[in-house]
Amino acid sequence: MNSIPAAAKQDFLLNLRDALRQFAEEREWGKFHTPKNLAISLCVEAAELLEHYQWLSETESVAIRPETKAKVSEEIADVLIYLVQIADKLDVDLKAAAIEKLRLNAAKYPIDKARGNSKKYTEL
Amino acid sequence: MNSIPAAAKQDFLLNLRDALRQFAEEREWGKFHTPKNLAISLCVEAAELLEHYQWLSETESVAIRPETKAKVSEEIADVLIYLVQIADKLDVDLKAAAIEKLRLNAAKYPIDKARGNSKKYTEL
Amino acid sequence: MNSIPAAAKQDFLLNLRDALRQFAEEREWGKFHTPKNLAISLCVEAAELLEHYQWLSETESVAIRPETKAKVSEEIADVLIYLVQIADKLDVDLKAAAIEKLRLNAAKYPIDKARGNSKKYTEL
Amino acid sequence: MNSIPAAAKQDFLLNLRDALRQFAEEREWGKFHTPKNLAISLCVEAAELLEHYQWLSETESVAIRPETKAKVSEEIADVLIYLVQIADKLDVDLKAAAIEKLRLNAAKYPIDKARGNSKKYTEL
Repeated sequence: MNSIPAAAKQDFLLNLRDALRQFAEEREWGKFHTPKNLAISLCVEAAELLEHYQWLSETESVAIRPETKAKVSEEIADVLIYLVQIADKLDVDLKAAAIEKLRLNAAKYPIDKARGNSKKYTEL
Repeated sequence: MNSIPAAAKQDFLLNLRDALRQFAEEREWGKFHTPKNLAISLCVEAAELLEHYQWLSETESVAIRPETKAKVSEEIADVLIYLVQIADKLDVDLKAAAIEKLRLNAAKYPIDKARGNSKKYTEL
Repeated sequence: MNSIPAAAKQDFLLNLRDALRQFAEEREWGKFHTPKNLAISLCVEAAELLEHYQWLSETESVAIRPETKAKVSEEIADVLIYLVQIADKLDVDLKAAAIEKLRLNAAKYPIDKARGNSKKYTEL
Repeated sequence: MNSIPAAAKQDFLLNLRDALRQFAEEREWGKFHTPKNLAISLCVEAAELLEHYQWLSETESVAIRPETKAKVSEEIADVLIYLVQIADKLDVDLKAAAIEKLRLNAAKYPIDKARGNSKKYTEL
């Protein structure tokens, strides 16, 4: 069963990882799930998410229709699912990686220099 | 400060969302963070992750060098960071979306049909 | 009509550009065809092409089924079509850009250093 | 030599294909250039192109700085180069594929229905 036990929900990402491991094992998908293939899938799903915004203006992109939102929500879930699986294969701790990246970004984009502009840190 | 308080870590994704909100607010980046732009960023970061696997064979992709792993880990964090921000802008609950998608996938890919093959559900 | 006159075929890319201009004008699509939107479309189409290879091994990817080839061929055409339109909007000469890039690549990847390895030029 | 002989320029795409074949042969890159890997490269380069538009508004995207244009021009060339190589590996005639796709698009998007709107043909 691929459900995520309620009792375990305090660590959602680990529970999701375990559910995805079981899902893949039950279907013998391990041989397809190389990091390279999962990275392709991640990219494909991210592009499917982007496709919904392809012809929307930035303003329109803020208030999408409920049907579009439901589809976008599904793509978001797909991206998360592949991301958790890549991190698992590479033995990367998603939380530690995100916290470390926030720390790096805070150093790259000091508030006083980055305020109100979207330049890359190499151009600040 | 963009740190994530230790006491709050039982719900990491919400804490990350809050830290990212603060990060963007302090830098007045709200105007750049339309769903459309965040979807572009997500796609760009996913492609940067994929780039590391561009010329590796599937076998090589399983055991990458520590330097590569550190870079891949950073790209994984970038993808998560943009994903959390898109979900926030769209008011999508990442956990609920992932659980719902697992449920859908279980229905699309019944174990007996999906076992050992990588066909899309439409071709099973 | 969006056909490409046979007589003009000696410069295919310019003829394609003209046919695409006419196609967009007839449908009043100019307002949608900003460079940013066309760059999104290009990325989305490239990912759709990639999707066909998502679960294929490198060996399998060499000999795809005729149905897959027909679909891949269509994605290839989509990528070319968006590429020609971006180049047109930016007033980039596709031929000159490709010739210049070949020249740059020849300098970045000298035969004796690049032979038989896939390292990025920055690591040669 | 990877130059494209002036005399042959009437069929630029074939000449580019031949120059790229020679370039890869001289460097013994054939083993890396599987369709799967080339499709990855195409996607990565398309995302690099898109990255330049990541934070630009649609209006800003119309008039980019000369330095940005030079970089975008290089990414455009990269996309064309990988596209020509994929088409070559798959034995797809780029011209025939583009002409056929234009014909399909004209049928999918009749002028009277598609005028002034950006809906996908499935929603027209």
